[in-house]
Amino acid sequence: MTKLQSAQSNTISAAARRMLADFKYFNLPNFVPITARMINRIRTQFQAGENVVEEGLIDTGHLATEPIKVNGVAGMKITSPHTDDAGPVIVNVHGGGFIMGTARERTALLAAAETNLPVYSVEYTLAPEGQAPLVVQEVLDFYRGVRAVVGDRPIVMSGSSAGSGIAAAVVQQAHNLQEPLPVAMILFCPALDISGDGDSAIFNEKRDVGSAKMALRLAERYIGDNNPRDPLVSPMYGEVGAWFPPTFMSTGTRDLMLSNVARFSDKLRAAGVEYTAIIKEGMWHGFNWEPQLEEAVTTRRAAWQFIQQHTEAGN
Amino acid sequence: MTKLQSAQSNTISAAARRMLADFKYFNLPNFVPITARMINRIRTQFQAGENVVEEGLIDTGHLATEPIKVNGVAGMKITSPHTDDAGPVIVNVHGGGFIMGTARERTALLAAAETNLPVYSVEYTLAPEGQAPLVVQEVLDFYRGVRAVVGDRPIVMSGSSAGSGIAAAVVQQAHNLQEPLPVAMILFCPALDISGDGDSAIFNEKRDVGSAKMALRLAERYIGDNNPRDPLVSPMYGEVGAWFPPTFMSTGTRDLMLSNVARFSDKLRAAGVEYTAIIKEGMWHGFNWEPQLEEAVTTRRAAWQFIQQHTEAGN
Repeated sequence: MTKLQSAQSNTISAAARRMLADFKYFNLPNFVPITARMINRIRTQFQAGENVVEEGLIDTGHLATEPIKVNGVAGMKITSPHTDDAGPVIVNVHGGGFIMGTARERTALLAAAETNLPVYSVEYTLAPEGQAPLVVQEVLDFYRGVRAVVGDRPIVMSGSSAGSGIAAAVVQQAHNLQEPLPVAMILFCPALDISGDGDSAIFNEKRDVGSAKMALRLAERYIGDNNPRDPLVSPMYGEVGAWFPPTFMSTGTRDLMLSNVARFSDKLRAAGVEYTAIIKEGMWHGFNWEPQLEEAVTTRRAAWQFIQQHTEAGN
Repeated sequence: MTKLQSAQSNTISAAARRMLADFKYFNLPNFVPITARMINRIRTQFQAGENVVEEGLIDTGHLATEPIKVNGVAGMKITSPHTDDAGPVIVNVHGGGFIMGTARERTALLAAAETNLPVYSVEYTLAPEGQAPLVVQEVLDFYRGVRAVVGDRPIVMSGSSAGSGIAAAVVQQAHNLQEPLPVAMILFCPALDISGDGDSAIFNEKRDVGSAKMALRLAERYIGDNNPRDPLVSPMYGEVGAWFPPTFMSTGTRDLMLSNVARFSDKLRAAGVEYTAIIKEGMWHGFNWEPQLEEAVTTRRAAWQFIQQHTEAGN
């Protein structure tokens, strides 16, 4: 789909060039109302493709996937053959525009395979059935349940895209309730502001792999009657103090969410929170979950190093 | 000049909105050859505007500006009334597309006023008279001269735009020659690759305050007969090892140089060099030198904090 000028293709990997050329731009005509039925169709089609990738990752990583329910919330515990019974654990909140994706998603599987830490991935209710702030409550409950299961092992919370936004809202809510916080946050291409604001939602429209306007229309089914700038919906508008956990973020120059990383970095810096923000040349929304892509591999490696630096016993 | 959508104006300061509305886009018609005479005209016009700003900064900061010559190279020593005779010093390399600007530039003045450190700002030969690699040699000589003057006081090297590229090349060259390196680098909107490569040179064309294509045409007068990817011309292609000094970089989402920060961050991270990279929402090339603009003030503050963290006695 994407036609690159040489100035752009010179600075990315050959694999990235091929992927950009092959991507089918994800959009829906503006005049089509986004019904629950259409969402269901998108979800089913997406999952059919993902199942193949996920099963491949489980095979090559010799991963165990165990459906769990903690504190009343369903999820998946993912472990590699090298996973320890001690040390840090990851609580993962998958992406998928609030309307698709499952606990067994790529990022959770890759995290388990590449860190050897146990990954507790939450199966939150998808929109339009699942909406803010109930989904945030659900993930908070899951996080509480994992805390009860793992005791005093350090917990890292990881999220991708929509899942990053939910994860950040959960942490702000846990802070409000004076509950123990994760020791670190990993936010891949984070959807921290789903009001539609941000320079990158404009300049990366038609440059990213999907339309920002369409993403917003999907997000509306999650926002429901809430104010899009309610901190439980868009944690960009929530409080960020020195108490906020050390945070790793990544995005790419084509990512419609880039401005979220720019703006949230400001908030973290102003609060004196340690953070790392990676803006990867030429990369699109969600690039980080590509199993083999060089740009994705180095970005995930930096994320896992961040975990290691912020837990007593990383891998 | 710039028409903002609400998604873009919502996420920047009111002053930034006004500035973007007022900016006159800096471009030259493609069919006009860039002669030495035209460069001279651009330079004179630019400096006339800058003189007013510079004198204002000198007044309000009660700054002393002393023309100096060290190791055969001219420059300016800038001090505030609170400048110490001990502690770190800054060696500054001004920006201006290689063809304009002087040692007494805004960033040097702001650095002196805001850090109270002495700033040694180099008056390198501008293009087309001054070209790589001779300009790099000139700035290296100046840096050596300052080392001789300040003894074992820690030196921070700071550059803006074109000056950042020169500064990085000087450090790589000093390393090759096994000379003492600065303790930290401050690179504002750095021109580390002037070959024209980078995603942002494409997507920020017409979004930044000036044309990337025109900047490239001006840079050609500095590049001369050299290969634009020679490390002495574009230090992006030079070696970056663990020896590279801790580095602060800043850019904005509208900056045609954004990709330089993205790509150089990768190199620093791969080499295990400590760095901070700030991508400021909605900001343009060189925004950091605006004296009052909130986005610029917080960016400079972060730069000066970086100096403080990496010198034994910051201000």
